Amino acid sequence: MATIKDVAKLAGVSVATVSRVINGSPKAGSQSVKRVRKAMLELRYQPNASARALAHQDSEMLGLVVADVSDPFFGAMVKATDHVAMAHKKFLLVANGYHDGEREQQMIEQMLRHRCRALVVHAKKLSDEQLGEYFQQLPGMVLINRMVPAYADRCLALDDHYGAWLATSHLLSQGHRRIGFLCSDHVISDAQDRLAGYCAALNDYDIAFDEQLVTYGSPDHTGGEHAMTELMSMYEKFSALICYNDSMAAGALTILYDNNVKVPEQISIVGFDDGLIARYVHPRLTTIRYPLTQMAQKAAQLAIQLADGEQGAKGAGIYKPTLIRRHSVNRYVSEFDTDMPGVIPTMR
Amino acid sequence: MATIKDVAKLAGVSVATVSRVINGSPKAGSQSVKRVRKAMLELRYQPNASARALAHQDSEMLGLVVADVSDPFFGAMVKATDHVAMAHKKFLLVANGYHDGEREQQMIEQMLRHRCRALVVHAKKLSDEQLGEYFQQLPGMVLINRMVPAYADRCLALDDHYGAWLATSHLLSQGHRRIGFLCSDHVISDAQDRLAGYCAALNDYDIAFDEQLVTYGSPDHTGGEHAMTELMSMYEKFSALICYNDSMAAGALTILYDNNVKVPEQISIVGFDDGLIARYVHPRLTTIRYPLTQMAQKAAQLAIQLADGEQGAKGAGIYKPTLIRRHSVNRYVSEFDTDMPGVIPTMR
Repeated sequence: MATIKDVAKLAGVSVATVSRVINGSPKAGSQSVKRVRKAMLELRYQPNASARALAHQDSEMLGLVVADVSDPFFGAMVKATDHVAMAHKKFLLVANGYHDGEREQQMIEQMLRHRCRALVVHAKKLSDEQLGEYFQQLPGMVLINRMVPAYADRCLALDDHYGAWLATSHLLSQGHRRIGFLCSDHVISDAQDRLAGYCAALNDYDIAFDEQLVTYGSPDHTGGEHAMTELMSMYEKFSALICYNDSMAAGALTILYDNNVKVPEQISIVGFDDGLIARYVHPRLTTIRYPLTQMAQKAAQLAIQLADGEQGAKGAGIYKPTLIRRHSVNRYVSEFDTDMPGVIPTMR
Repeated sequence: MATIKDVAKLAGVSVATVSRVINGSPKAGSQSVKRVRKAMLELRYQPNASARALAHQDSEMLGLVVADVSDPFFGAMVKATDHVAMAHKKFLLVANGYHDGEREQQMIEQMLRHRCRALVVHAKKLSDEQLGEYFQQLPGMVLINRMVPAYADRCLALDDHYGAWLATSHLLSQGHRRIGFLCSDHVISDAQDRLAGYCAALNDYDIAFDEQLVTYGSPDHTGGEHAMTELMSMYEKFSALICYNDSMAAGALTILYDNNVKVPEQISIVGFDDGLIARYVHPRLTTIRYPLTQMAQKAAQLAIQLADGEQGAKGAGIYKPTLIRRHSVNRYVSEFDTDMPGVIPTMR
């Protein structure tokens, strides 16, 4: 691979001149610029990003730490962030924390080592204190999907409590009274807040919380299958389900189909996220829309603005989810017995 | 942020000594190592990855260029590659080419500028010649999902022709004779080879190719909806469908459900990929398994071995897809009229 010295030699100028041309310095004469550009082209010389980063104590990179890129939720986050990076001629550096505190820490520190001055972080396992230290070290760090009160102006979070309240209230308004909840078994605020929102909505209708109606699984297709199977095995009656996310709802649908339970004729289902999956499953899911693309874009813009020292940059705060009505919810009409344990059928 | 000078001062050693400790040089005395490590910890000093990369003309990064991370196909590729990177204590650098030749080029050059010596590339729009130049520049570059004959020992590709032949042959063996093909409208070898495989299987059964039975769309859910709608609007009779990938199959299912056509009772469907989506849709898709995780892992390992100058590294070649039988295909029994234009029902 050609070096800067090779370019200087071929162009008949000093290494310093080549460096000036690469960095767009006004001190480089137009004759030199032409000769250097031609030599760079001939030698296929690629300026060294590490050298530039070192010289500027900066990088052209926007960092993003997510949990797992292969989860469509984070895939959408990567895409939204990448669009902002492209618009700012930055290069997106992505790392996976895999829902593990130690790994989240390693990935943030890798980003620091690569001198990512603008960084968007999704980390649920690190403590507020640990994140606080990184907030202090890196003025261009922004947190997504979590609120750390001391750094509220650099956090974008979702109102999970309200989202689950909205989902449950919708089912209640459709006449459902026995509503199951397939919850994530990750011990994170998202799960706790959504469960609390579900309870609050039941409370609005003077319905006592029944822990038998809540089962847990990993927040994915397999976890949805497990939680659904557990709920059905307990002989509890229910006519509707709230799912922690659309992936769990998809897993629940699989089990219901296999057991010949019709959605929404016998069981109504509401998901959460409104990602790719909500439109792939049958029936298309009524769900709670997480404005993820919008939030990820705002987070990336905020990180870049903060890294550039811009004052009054906006975008932080608590975002509000909305209800998307599709085809997985029916009005509850009347209760009657069925061969299917655990299922109260509802009719159109 | 603390600098190497701060560390040297606090540890009471020279900057050169700190540098030796960071780089694990045997010249650093054990006393110095202890003092430097303690100072680094106290000051929360992060060694500069750019400085290291510059010194070694190398980086601790494994590069990956994909088309679009938000597509679960590439999400799975990222995850598999990341596992190999982690095992080699490397940091994965991901870039999206977004099915655009210019952007693919920019991203590969960004990887070169960041001195990624090991690089896995998914690029369908660049020519063999353009890729050949990058192969020459970067001995640790490996191509996935494409074969460039001159660099066959650094390419991992899928036998697309065989995959589509397998899917079509399966439907033919189940008695289907009028088989539609929802094809990708991307002008890439994948689409051409799969279409050729479909034709070859029909030919084995002496069935003439009917271009009316092939419609095109983008290789995603929306494209599947479009291609399915077009096929149904033409009053063609068909009892089975091959889809370019599982996402298009999911889109086709949506349209069929909305029009009250039952799968597999009236129409049998075979997908391609066997990713996340094949198990999310209803009925679960009979599909062609793309051994993507295995191939992405081998590609990453090969790239790292080549970058390290290892001789005789293996993994390149043409991989063979397999048939996964789930619930979207029925045996074709008899033809009878139906209200649904374009549909020959099949019965169990």
